[in-house]
Amino acid sequence: MSFEHLRARRAGIDTYQQPVVYMRGDCPVCRAEGFEAQAQVEVIANGRHLLAILNHVSSDWLGSDEIALSEVAWTLLGAAAGDEVEVRHPPVLASLAHLRAKVHGSRLGYSALRELMEDVSRGRLSDIHLACLVTVCAGGGLDLDETVALTRAMVDVGERIDWGTSPVMDKHCIGGLPGNRTTLLVVPIVAACGVLMPKTSSRAITSAAGTADAMETLAPVELDLVALRRVVAREGGCIAWGGATRISPADDMLIRVERPLSLESEGLLVASILSKKAATGSQRVLIDLPVGPLTKVRSTAAAELLSHSLVTVGAALGLQVRTVFTDGTQPVGRGIGPALEAMDVMAVLKRSADAPEDLRERALLLAGLLLEMAGKTALGSGQALAREVLEDGRALAKFLAICEAQGGLRVPPRAAHTEDVIAHACGTVSAIDTRLISRAAKLAGAPRDPAAGARMHVRARDHVELGQPLFTLHAGSPGALQYALRFLRSQLPVVQIEALP
Amino acid sequence: MSFEHLRARRAGIDTYQQPVVYMRGDCPVCRAEGFEAQAQVEVIANGRHLLAILNHVSSDWLGSDEIALSEVAWTLLGAAAGDEVEVRHPPVLASLAHLRAKVHGSRLGYSALRELMEDVSRGRLSDIHLACLVTVCAGGGLDLDETVALTRAMVDVGERIDWGTSPVMDKHCIGGLPGNRTTLLVVPIVAACGVLMPKTSSRAITSAAGTADAMETLAPVELDLVALRRVVAREGGCIAWGGATRISPADDMLIRVERPLSLESEGLLVASILSKKAATGSQRVLIDLPVGPLTKVRSTAAAELLSHSLVTVGAALGLQVRTVFTDGTQPVGRGIGPALEAMDVMAVLKRSADAPEDLRERALLLAGLLLEMAGKTALGSGQALAREVLEDGRALAKFLAICEAQGGLRVPPRAAHTEDVIAHACGTVSAIDTRLISRAAKLAGAPRDPAAGARMHVRARDHVELGQPLFTLHAGSPGALQYALRFLRSQLPVVQIEALP
Repeated sequence: MSFEHLRARRAGIDTYQQPVVYMRGDCPVCRAEGFEAQAQVEVIANGRHLLAILNHVSSDWLGSDEIALSEVAWTLLGAAAGDEVEVRHPPVLASLAHLRAKVHGSRLGYSALRELMEDVSRGRLSDIHLACLVTVCAGGGLDLDETVALTRAMVDVGERIDWGTSPVMDKHCIGGLPGNRTTLLVVPIVAACGVLMPKTSSRAITSAAGTADAMETLAPVELDLVALRRVVAREGGCIAWGGATRISPADDMLIRVERPLSLESEGLLVASILSKKAATGSQRVLIDLPVGPLTKVRSTAAAELLSHSLVTVGAALGLQVRTVFTDGTQPVGRGIGPALEAMDVMAVLKRSADAPEDLRERALLLAGLLLEMAGKTALGSGQALAREVLEDGRALAKFLAICEAQGGLRVPPRAAHTEDVIAHACGTVSAIDTRLISRAAKLAGAPRDPAAGARMHVRARDHVELGQPLFTLHAGSPGALQYALRFLRSQLPVVQIEALP
Repeated sequence: MSFEHLRARRAGIDTYQQPVVYMRGDCPVCRAEGFEAQAQVEVIANGRHLLAILNHVSSDWLGSDEIALSEVAWTLLGAAAGDEVEVRHPPVLASLAHLRAKVHGSRLGYSALRELMEDVSRGRLSDIHLACLVTVCAGGGLDLDETVALTRAMVDVGERIDWGTSPVMDKHCIGGLPGNRTTLLVVPIVAACGVLMPKTSSRAITSAAGTADAMETLAPVELDLVALRRVVAREGGCIAWGGATRISPADDMLIRVERPLSLESEGLLVASILSKKAATGSQRVLIDLPVGPLTKVRSTAAAELLSHSLVTVGAALGLQVRTVFTDGTQPVGRGIGPALEAMDVMAVLKRSADAPEDLRERALLLAGLLLEMAGKTALGSGQALAREVLEDGRALAKFLAICEAQGGLRVPPRAAHTEDVIAHACGTVSAIDTRLISRAAKLAGAPRDPAAGARMHVRARDHVELGQPLFTLHAGSPGALQYALRFLRSQLPVVQIEALP
């Protein structure tokens, strides 16, 4: 309960989603309140309230009557330089009592989880609280009922889209496979058959390219809700970035601590996926589970378990969920990186001779299943219909129309600097390390540099000759290119070659 | 694996024990490595390695070839301005695999917990990891075997003192009761009987005064191991600050996240207390458990459970632990705050007429039990012996000798500004809010200002007249005094008075 005020100042420090404020440890407010470094405080400006972590400043860049705000704190408070800021002890959050109850073994119902997600989505929980929450949810921490309640709660604290029609189709891939850019093919095929598929996708989080990143090299993707509705009304489908809307906001907060902890929580994963689907108004969802040693789902057994939760929780939320297990052992298509993946997509849509067959077949499989789920065609005949729509050019036409509606077709950029990585032996490709090649693509600049990444020339079981190019690195600068190459030289080979006997 | 170097700079930002580094998001290293804000990075300078959280700086106070370090990062790296600093992706910590295993339900043995505590004590776990650890240990998260292994691990990763003799006595109070400053009386009484009692205490964490804070107003307490040994060799006892040594360093790291989470973990509490006792070479430990509605231990039943763990785990570590349950419903003595508490202690030692009887009797109870545990006297006669030693002045003489040995007796400071808080009704004192009075003492400046705090004039069940002083606030400035008074006016009364029928 401070009655003193401080003057706001922008620290220009990005603390991601954790709001941080900087005050002199010897300022009147800290001394009077006994605020310690790393304490959580309530910050009030312009009638807005925010919970932030306090850092003490000892050097002279900050005055005793000033408070500096990290970027997220600055934005959330809508602060301007010199604004009067009040700092208090934080209010007691009821949701933390629920969290403690969960830690001590109670099961949480909807209302408790709703309060919790409300505070999470408003950024009231510090990283420490979020880590506690993710920990209690990890492993089998959430049973199916709790997962259902959590998913509902995540939906209910955010915006929700209603398309006022049925069926509304959607697809999702539980990530980890470079080049798996099927969405850009599935949406136009399905929409071309007159089935509604308003797809919102994410940008890359840890990968070399997200669906939104790849699409952005072909058309604008940052559409607000109004633009989104206009595109979908006109073309029956879209491929937009989901982040522009406030859909399942709690999810983004949880992800920021899930990654550093790298704790697998099936309950959180299911709630994260399905809350976004339900909130975007999807009704029938096909989920692609690539199974491979380096993907999120390592075995068919694990895929079966996850599939069961997805279908069950989906049903409880009124979503018809279907899963399909796919090969996750090597990259899909040739390109890895936004523009390079977009070029693969265009090659398939244009039926070019060199279009990557595996990407095409994966897309046709998924599009076929979606058409069957939509009741557009008999079970078993969906893939044939999808192929027909691709072959006769309707898919390409629909894709171009969607790009137009989203703001106009673009030509994907090409990298100024490339270098081949060649085979140092002759033999058969026994394995391709999907993690290493993604890492190399990122070091070359992807996804920040949309033209950067890698282009594969070989696939598993291919025969290669000594000196044959295995893949080509693409980068915007010689430095970035050398950097990625230097990294690769320090690692095991991306492409493993088994010498012939 | 960055090969670029950055120039070190001191940010002058106190992030408590969480090392933080500041780099421009657009600097070559961040771009090449794809370091995101809030990512954990390995920082290398002067051959020292450190794991820190990265914050991106967008404003111009930092150059693209610079890296700014928070205070703890600066200290741990022993950095100087302009030092070459390398930043890498963090190494994989084996201990995090143990942590994840625990989250997924496995029980951890000594070697896993040892690795974990090693990394914790070296500051390699981020607040997020520590929050995960505290969460899995909360409630019944640790069974007795794990608690024993954890306690051993916490001892083994830090320094350890061996006094080369027996018995070595110690006491501990599981805090939360203002004015409970018995240690300053118990140590001289026990030592005066020729029983070794080398006491290291903590400073206040959340209270208005810690034992070390109160003692410091009477004598220096920041003794290194050498000084500590010298004092103990000469006087058979000491009352020093434990923080000057590297005793159970993991414990301090865990406390920093336990507080914001306010999760009760009996296992962690027991490991925290007993690891420090074992590491300081104590052999027989008496633990005071004040039971009251606002103390850590709320009921006798809870005290019984905690007592059982303390005794069992202690035995497994070769410690003879005994507990005593005491009244935790109101402050002890009169003073609340370092100097005011020290004055109570001196009054008891000097047998002044106005010496607080409750403080004296608590001290005699504990000292008596310790003398019995040490085998100095028959069971049941310890308290009488303690009283004799206090009455005949040997306790005072020993205390003065200890102060001399620690660097010389000091006169506790007196606050320049005081104000009485008076009764607004006549009747009987029905309750005293120990939390509110501590808070008021802190707002008045304690413990930073050792003279600040509160002095109680009434106790529960006293009769009070209208306008009679209930307690006096002491502060170093009119501002601090008014601040504490303003706070009190905004709250329920500290001293509740029941009007007579």
